[in-house]
Amino acid sequence: MFEAIVGASTLQDALDSVSVLVDECKIRLNEDGLAIRAVDPANVGMVDLSLDAAAFESYEADGGVIGVNLTRLENIAGMAGSGDLVHLELDEETRKLHIRIEELSYTLALIDPDSVRQEPDIPDLDLSANIVLEGHQLDRGIKAADMVSDHIRLRVDEEEEAFFVEAEGDTDDVDLKLPRDELIDLTAGAADSLFSLDYLKDMNKAIPSDAEVEIELGEEFPVKLHYELAEGHAQVTFMLAPRIQSD
Amino acid sequence: MFEAIVGASTLQDALDSVSVLVDECKIRLNEDGLAIRAVDPANVGMVDLSLDAAAFESYEADGGVIGVNLTRLENIAGMAGSGDLVHLELDEETRKLHIRIEELSYTLALIDPDSVRQEPDIPDLDLSANIVLEGHQLDRGIKAADMVSDHIRLRVDEEEEAFFVEAEGDTDDVDLKLPRDELIDLTAGAADSLFSLDYLKDMNKAIPSDAEVEIELGEEFPVKLHYELAEGHAQVTFMLAPRIQSD
Amino acid sequence: MFEAIVGASTLQDALDSVSVLVDECKIRLNEDGLAIRAVDPANVGMVDLSLDAAAFESYEADGGVIGVNLTRLENIAGMAGSGDLVHLELDEETRKLHIRIEELSYTLALIDPDSVRQEPDIPDLDLSANIVLEGHQLDRGIKAADMVSDHIRLRVDEEEEAFFVEAEGDTDDVDLKLPRDELIDLTAGAADSLFSLDYLKDMNKAIPSDAEVEIELGEEFPVKLHYELAEGHAQVTFMLAPRIQSD
Repeated sequence: MFEAIVGASTLQDALDSVSVLVDECKIRLNEDGLAIRAVDPANVGMVDLSLDAAAFESYEADGGVIGVNLTRLENIAGMAGSGDLVHLELDEETRKLHIRIEELSYTLALIDPDSVRQEPDIPDLDLSANIVLEGHQLDRGIKAADMVSDHIRLRVDEEEEAFFVEAEGDTDDVDLKLPRDELIDLTAGAADSLFSLDYLKDMNKAIPSDAEVEIELGEEFPVKLHYELAEGHAQVTFMLAPRIQSD
Repeated sequence: MFEAIVGASTLQDALDSVSVLVDECKIRLNEDGLAIRAVDPANVGMVDLSLDAAAFESYEADGGVIGVNLTRLENIAGMAGSGDLVHLELDEETRKLHIRIEELSYTLALIDPDSVRQEPDIPDLDLSANIVLEGHQLDRGIKAADMVSDHIRLRVDEEEEAFFVEAEGDTDDVDLKLPRDELIDLTAGAADSLFSLDYLKDMNKAIPSDAEVEIELGEEFPVKLHYELAEGHAQVTFMLAPRIQSD
Repeated sequence: MFEAIVGASTLQDALDSVSVLVDECKIRLNEDGLAIRAVDPANVGMVDLSLDAAAFESYEADGGVIGVNLTRLENIAGMAGSGDLVHLELDEETRKLHIRIEELSYTLALIDPDSVRQEPDIPDLDLSANIVLEGHQLDRGIKAADMVSDHIRLRVDEEEEAFFVEAEGDTDDVDLKLPRDELIDLTAGAADSLFSLDYLKDMNKAIPSDAEVEIELGEEFPVKLHYELAEGHAQVTFMLAPRIQSD
């Protein structure tokens, strides 16, 4: 069984973090909260979302997995005002999710979870640098990089004790330097990797500009981005595979 | 002769209610106010607008009919700020309407009224249910229905004493239930009809979200929607033909 | 050498006045400020911009000319918040302009000035009428004219002591009459010229709605529009060639 009540903006923000990568996903209805893991069709970007029971006004579940069309679920969640509560209830017999926002009811047909792309294992990685900054700082670097290139380089300079967001275009270059004192925290270490800007732009869309973002970075390794939603009751991790540096 | 001064937003709201259905219309310049009746080219939706002399700052007319291109008239009315007054004056000799907004003059060439589609007779119908609600309640039902279907079902449940807005999609369903205590008024009666969402969406665009909307509804019969503008000095009636319920 | 610091909105407004006509331009880095003159590819519209040293927080230059891609320079300037300062520094060896906005650096490759269209000479013209009005008054006339025609007629009626903005469409006409007492200033004189609305619309986009605009107008002669930015520390002149009046 599954029955829960959640604030509309918590639900919307949580779904956004997954829908920037995939259109369909499995949702695990665990006793202690919802969990979603998904990987994009090209196997380049992954997301791991935990929405704790404490993020809900009320929450009851006894395990089980459902498959959902995220686009439809986001559309109906988008009908709610930011202060509205969204009531979710699973009908196990008909395999439908009943969504209620005030007087409005929406019956969402679920998808067979077996037809949804398998959930990825998000590997433990030993990444030597750890950068903590605010969402809007990352946003500025990504937007600027996007003016000149399709790729973005993230690196830490151990001597300068600074985090760099860089992009090289055919004629123009972009360089955002954030020294330790402009970061929330920095554990310097050997870290220099190149990423596809398309993916990072999509992930960035889901990150609130005032969120604290923790970046785990290595040498030509995947990057991990962590941030929280719902006053800490939801945790999101993005993982993005690197591009080979060509020079 | 015809000469009148009207607040820009009154004129804009009134024209909107007609332009959602037709691009050209006849305007009757009666002594006690303007009147427009129009039906869309497919004969599915009708509108009946009365803009009383009391809705104007000043109003003088002695009968007569003009044909206007609504798109152009709306464009020029849209040049006015919401607090501006719009001065209208008919030049009967040249068959032009002079429109003045502060220092700006626009000369609108009129259309031969005989070339405009004939005004419809809006029939008296004996519709057994009468629902009064706020524009934003209807808006929410229409927007939600639009997520799953091209059709919308409006019905009254006499036992439950509630008004229902429903839509059935291929996989998902939408259901907005408004019981008596969430409505401004309800006269329950046998009422259950299906409508094209395209038309209802267009009509809904013209209805202010804070307007009181009276819905007259029957069994597989046309629906009538009534609302007022200009602090009661303008009355709009929409009538929409039903779709055959297929089940 | 060239090194300067300028408020983001001053830089953005100044660049806008040139980019409405051309994509690339030469910038003269004079000791007393920047100067840009440019003419559109069809030789119909010209702009002359002076951005005085006093418009900058700090300014140092010793002459010299650079060629820039305006679109890219505007994009990077657009990354700045309105209160941000933009740091500009020329690297003469690499022919690159380093642009810094807080922690963000952008390296803009310059264009060979010889490859940029030659700067026009903006002729002295003996134009007999001079009209001073607010940007939003001109804006209203241009927007209204655009509803009916591709051309706009500007004229002064010496007897009525009024400035007219007029457009004649196939069926409808627009006429904005601004008598002396609704203008900031008027020197009446023989003045009546027709212009392409496309160009005037583009120029109008760059004119702040609260700017004081001085119009110099003659009989089938080019029009000159003057306005100031940056609290008077920047001067813009647009010149637009007339269309032949066909009647």
